[in-house]
Amino acid sequence: MPIPSRDDKFSFGLWTIGYNGADPFGGPTRAPLDVVHAVEKLAELGAYGLTFHDDDLYAFGSTDAERDTQIGRLKQALSDTGLIVPMVTTNLFSAPVFKDGGFTSNDRGVRRYAMRKAMRQLELGVELGAKTFVMWGGREGAEYDAAKDIRSALERYREALNVFGDYVTDKGYDIRFAIEPKPNEPRGDILLPTVGHAMAFIETLERPELFGLNPEVGHEQMAGLNFAAGIAQTLYQGKLFHIDLNGQRGIKYDQDLVFGHGDLHNAFALVDLLENGGPNGGPSYDGPRHFDYKPSRTEDETGVWDSAAANMNTYLLLKERAAAFRADPEVQEALSAARVPELAVPTLSVGESYDDLLADRASFEDFDTDSYFNGKGFGFVRLQQLATEHLMGAR
Amino acid sequence: MPIPSRDDKFSFGLWTIGYNGADPFGGPTRAPLDVVHAVEKLAELGAYGLTFHDDDLYAFGSTDAERDTQIGRLKQALSDTGLIVPMVTTNLFSAPVFKDGGFTSNDRGVRRYAMRKAMRQLELGVELGAKTFVMWGGREGAEYDAAKDIRSALERYREALNVFGDYVTDKGYDIRFAIEPKPNEPRGDILLPTVGHAMAFIETLERPELFGLNPEVGHEQMAGLNFAAGIAQTLYQGKLFHIDLNGQRGIKYDQDLVFGHGDLHNAFALVDLLENGGPNGGPSYDGPRHFDYKPSRTEDETGVWDSAAANMNTYLLLKERAAAFRADPEVQEALSAARVPELAVPTLSVGESYDDLLADRASFEDFDTDSYFNGKGFGFVRLQQLATEHLMGAR
Amino acid sequence: MPIPSRDDKFSFGLWTIGYNGADPFGGPTRAPLDVVHAVEKLAELGAYGLTFHDDDLYAFGSTDAERDTQIGRLKQALSDTGLIVPMVTTNLFSAPVFKDGGFTSNDRGVRRYAMRKAMRQLELGVELGAKTFVMWGGREGAEYDAAKDIRSALERYREALNVFGDYVTDKGYDIRFAIEPKPNEPRGDILLPTVGHAMAFIETLERPELFGLNPEVGHEQMAGLNFAAGIAQTLYQGKLFHIDLNGQRGIKYDQDLVFGHGDLHNAFALVDLLENGGPNGGPSYDGPRHFDYKPSRTEDETGVWDSAAANMNTYLLLKERAAAFRADPEVQEALSAARVPELAVPTLSVGESYDDLLADRASFEDFDTDSYFNGKGFGFVRLQQLATEHLMGAR
Amino acid sequence: MPIPSRDDKFSFGLWTIGYNGADPFGGPTRAPLDVVHAVEKLAELGAYGLTFHDDDLYAFGSTDAERDTQIGRLKQALSDTGLIVPMVTTNLFSAPVFKDGGFTSNDRGVRRYAMRKAMRQLELGVELGAKTFVMWGGREGAEYDAAKDIRSALERYREALNVFGDYVTDKGYDIRFAIEPKPNEPRGDILLPTVGHAMAFIETLERPELFGLNPEVGHEQMAGLNFAAGIAQTLYQGKLFHIDLNGQRGIKYDQDLVFGHGDLHNAFALVDLLENGGPNGGPSYDGPRHFDYKPSRTEDETGVWDSAAANMNTYLLLKERAAAFRADPEVQEALSAARVPELAVPTLSVGESYDDLLADRASFEDFDTDSYFNGKGFGFVRLQQLATEHLMGAR
Repeated sequence: MPIPSRDDKFSFGLWTIGYNGADPFGGPTRAPLDVVHAVEKLAELGAYGLTFHDDDLYAFGSTDAERDTQIGRLKQALSDTGLIVPMVTTNLFSAPVFKDGGFTSNDRGVRRYAMRKAMRQLELGVELGAKTFVMWGGREGAEYDAAKDIRSALERYREALNVFGDYVTDKGYDIRFAIEPKPNEPRGDILLPTVGHAMAFIETLERPELFGLNPEVGHEQMAGLNFAAGIAQTLYQGKLFHIDLNGQRGIKYDQDLVFGHGDLHNAFALVDLLENGGPNGGPSYDGPRHFDYKPSRTEDETGVWDSAAANMNTYLLLKERAAAFRADPEVQEALSAARVPELAVPTLSVGESYDDLLADRASFEDFDTDSYFNGKGFGFVRLQQLATEHLMGAR
Repeated sequence: MPIPSRDDKFSFGLWTIGYNGADPFGGPTRAPLDVVHAVEKLAELGAYGLTFHDDDLYAFGSTDAERDTQIGRLKQALSDTGLIVPMVTTNLFSAPVFKDGGFTSNDRGVRRYAMRKAMRQLELGVELGAKTFVMWGGREGAEYDAAKDIRSALERYREALNVFGDYVTDKGYDIRFAIEPKPNEPRGDILLPTVGHAMAFIETLERPELFGLNPEVGHEQMAGLNFAAGIAQTLYQGKLFHIDLNGQRGIKYDQDLVFGHGDLHNAFALVDLLENGGPNGGPSYDGPRHFDYKPSRTEDETGVWDSAAANMNTYLLLKERAAAFRADPEVQEALSAARVPELAVPTLSVGESYDDLLADRASFEDFDTDSYFNGKGFGFVRLQQLATEHLMGAR
Repeated sequence: MPIPSRDDKFSFGLWTIGYNGADPFGGPTRAPLDVVHAVEKLAELGAYGLTFHDDDLYAFGSTDAERDTQIGRLKQALSDTGLIVPMVTTNLFSAPVFKDGGFTSNDRGVRRYAMRKAMRQLELGVELGAKTFVMWGGREGAEYDAAKDIRSALERYREALNVFGDYVTDKGYDIRFAIEPKPNEPRGDILLPTVGHAMAFIETLERPELFGLNPEVGHEQMAGLNFAAGIAQTLYQGKLFHIDLNGQRGIKYDQDLVFGHGDLHNAFALVDLLENGGPNGGPSYDGPRHFDYKPSRTEDETGVWDSAAANMNTYLLLKERAAAFRADPEVQEALSAARVPELAVPTLSVGESYDDLLADRASFEDFDTDSYFNGKGFGFVRLQQLATEHLMGAR
Repeated sequence: MPIPSRDDKFSFGLWTIGYNGADPFGGPTRAPLDVVHAVEKLAELGAYGLTFHDDDLYAFGSTDAERDTQIGRLKQALSDTGLIVPMVTTNLFSAPVFKDGGFTSNDRGVRRYAMRKAMRQLELGVELGAKTFVMWGGREGAEYDAAKDIRSALERYREALNVFGDYVTDKGYDIRFAIEPKPNEPRGDILLPTVGHAMAFIETLERPELFGLNPEVGHEQMAGLNFAAGIAQTLYQGKLFHIDLNGQRGIKYDQDLVFGHGDLHNAFALVDLLENGGPNGGPSYDGPRHFDYKPSRTEDETGVWDSAAANMNTYLLLKERAAAFRADPEVQEALSAARVPELAVPTLSVGESYDDLLADRASFEDFDTDSYFNGKGFGFVRLQQLATEHLMGAR
């Protein structure tokens, strides 16, 4: 079994291992987790980073003194262990003031408060050396269509992000922003529900280069979307700034299971994409492998750390399987037979104009479309079976 | 009951009223519908436009003579009735040659053939005065992650669209392209699965201004997404080039029911948005109201025309209901109480800088977050009940 | 607008109007609701009944004295207002002890404790005159297949229910049990996930006649199932003991919206079924119309009571619409044309044996199957359009 | 890699390997498959059985002579290869006559025709030695609530099945009936949508012992339900008469992928249940392992047979993994720690009455519920990780 090391860049949210078990139908089953203990345990297990919301470290409504104490304790723990804080984020969804959202609350006072809260945490992130500021707008949405003017909401969201972009640029901060999409829960429908909506929105910003995504496995799968395919488009558009790994078993409430405990085929494809660049290879992702999961409510603290380790172990196991898949000559042959590499070849020849194409009778008038009936199979099922067998360690 | 007229800009796909009833578990239940008859009936029912795929008008593999005959018959019918062709599209998904897609097939020959087929239909569209060329890439996708390199697929899709953009620009054609997203079916996962993914992709094109969307009600709802909210973002980004109206009852196979026979609340919000600009008003949509639905397989020709009429009737009824909703003083008061108009007010004051915001103690240090507990309710449920009662004609 | 009265038999769970707004991503937004105030307000709004879990009335872990005080206050309020308690239920899902369920926890001590807790609440229900004891086994399930032996779980569930059946029989109590199915949330998968699974299970019990269902709109819709159709089967099998009305917008987390704020078409069909017996009429349901919903987290107490009233108003409005639909001669004609009444006619004639059927050449050898192609349409879309127009108050 | 043999009892539907690739958006991509060739290939690949609908063997509307020829050719092929026909079924969904269903069509003439068609195929099944007659009522349903009286439909379905039960009893036929549930597609909602609904319905029949289920992996998963859990309840109720194995990637159209190419975790749990009896062991299933899948439309005949083999290979691989999982002492220890075996222990002690339970203060008054907070974890995540690692062949 592979052993996690810091070179693997595994990070965890403080709210993940610190999840107390509360859900819509029950209260906590576990005591609060102290941040120092969390840092020590993560270091011991092989992680390299801790991430956190402001409210994870010090409760909403803390005094400045309480806040400073907690920040000090965190810094000491980081220093003692060598762990880093690659990302921070702000909680604009738990307190009653955010019941209709933060940056897009119908209430202007709340929007101003949200911007202030975010900027305060941004400062802390920069101070701690974080390179990414994640924004999950879980309460930016509505249950009822008449309750929210979506275009006004997008305009307000845009306003806030433009201010933040100016701010970090003016200050010369080395940090970028990553939007985390989610289709629903806790709101009936959430603004920017998928990676696609978020990337499209980013193009409307004044400094789009500062804004990218933090896609989460389960969030896209809650919309029935293929996560690995979504990440491929995110990479294609240069927007994979950070990633949230976890597990989800289909379209239902947000499960936040351990990575690999959901759709295992797609997890395999994802790790192959992140590590090897996918079917045709190519540049991939070198940022943190961040786990945004919840240890099941049935578990005690032993289960918390077992589950944290499980995330890393499964990732590393999938990485081994993906490497073996790529290295297998039979797989290479099957990929060729399926014409997968041929998709990297431009459709027009070098220098070919549309007039040339229109004049090429071989491409249309004389093209043998009949040969695709009962012939010219793509061999995709064979390829999937090879992937399945590699995933299962049977080759 | 309101009567449809040409001013309502209702259009139908030839494949919709012409749907023969074939589905994955059964063959046709209706005879083919002749295009001339279709045009005459649509004119009689109050529609203003007909749209079609090349293969709807003349079968795949037709000779030039067969094609010309059918085009001539269509032109005569249009001339006889005054109907127009506001949009055309091409079929790159039915013939065996497209079994792995068109512009993104792993097979380069197929990709070239697909481009040629599309350009031929583009020419016909321009000839008939169509202002929009819709592209539904139903076969552009995969069932298995290893079978398709998504980034290569996006690059090939981009290549094709860039060629088309150059082509219409060089020719001076007055036509724009509209991508129609869909998450799955007939492929396990389809490229550009939602309006968001498609809008994000468009930003990578060389002439993004020529490319927009043709969102379809049921397609977004197959991913559990809020269609009206998606259209609001599409309008926000200036990309609502065309629209496909129909009905879908939740996350399942593509049902293509009559508009309004699916999620009625969301249909109400959509018509309100298209006609009135949504909760806070604003510019909206003035293009064709295009129905992309299927008369149920249980119906005979009477049912076909009843269902065509039902689409238009329900749209007009919802338009009346939306107008009454907007005009109701109690609704206006409830919107104000819910602070819906306040979302149109910028979060920063005119001329306010981030430094000003950071210095404003009222926005953070002195902001009364406690007042949002057990108070400052938004009254959203009341608003939704008012919408429900207007939708039901009870006010 | 129709006015709710006690004859309408509207009841509410204390946990519904008392919902404090806590969800997986945020704490309470409303203060606790006192039971006496709740009873008074419900009486004022026109409800006839209150229902509750033990833990709704007195917190888990209360002393006997605390419990008695609360029971006494409730009794007084009921007496003061004339409200009744038609149903009670027990909470076997919130406290940490139930983290793996109650009757089917892997931990035998928990199972014994759960039985005791349920029996205590059963006694209280009988004392208050409740005729139904609802059992929602929200924690009876698992996230992981290896963690739960489903057959052992069913056997333990069966053991508990058999004991309860014996108990009420021996005591001569006039109360029946109603299982409330749900597919998932808070567990990854819940035992007895649909009305079908629960009815099948009931047949394995020793006293099946004492056990029926309490189906909830949103729970079946979370599995994409047609709620009205499920209720029709439940009625067919004589198992509709109680019903939970609310709203859900598709397959996602459990929304518990106001009744009618979800799938409005299906709500219309449901009310038609409950009130009129559905398309072909027939015996229907005369028990409580119980609302199991949550006032949105965005609301303050005004919104709580507005939303409670909205449930009743929408139900009564749908009841009016359904009556008008049934009374419309055009609807009756369309139903006949669709051969809906013909489905009530037995397929075999009176006294016809299978030998007679096999000998009847008209039924097979000479049957004109070709006439169903391009003919003999069922006119279902027209019927649905009539339903839509009645639902919208346009006829 | 394990090799399939006849002892594994693998069977295939003629319509599976014979699927021509037609789907809602495209026509066939493969030529028809001759039944003799199909039998020979299956025999060669290691299957033991072929199953079929009447219309698979001879087209709907065939003359008696055509039918006899095809039956004769099938018999010869069976005799030549030693393959058997463990199951047959009838097609009541493809021809236009069945556009509103068979046994529950609103049209009585159609219902009579459907019964005759089914009985004719039943006779053929008995003649060929089939022990199971599967009934998939794919068209028994509706798109619109007003179009179908569900209770009448259930009554008509019941009427037909009671006749069939009498018929085979009177004739002394050694064959049983297996209902195959499906939630939707091709109808908007299908009667008896899940294994639960079907088992509940069976209890209303006159000879319930003759009727059981043929659950299909993808059909339950189209409703988001846990297939292995559904099979466990089916086994618990003695109703697993037959099984349809395939793959489905979440809630969407019916994919009919190769077994194991969908939810791999659940496939692992299923094979463990079928082969080993699940977490606590116990009696399991010894019938055919029947694959009801579709070779992807992208494939040619090579892909057809590759995909057929893939089904069997994956099943056997999962069987090996499940055996290793059960045999691993660490797994056994983890199961104990998770108290999985404890669920097989009755909650009441031998001879314990409810009075004894009520008198047992240790079970309630003195039970330490607090110890379940921050303690007494179940270790379920560890168990799932062990299952994942065994599934991946990493232990």
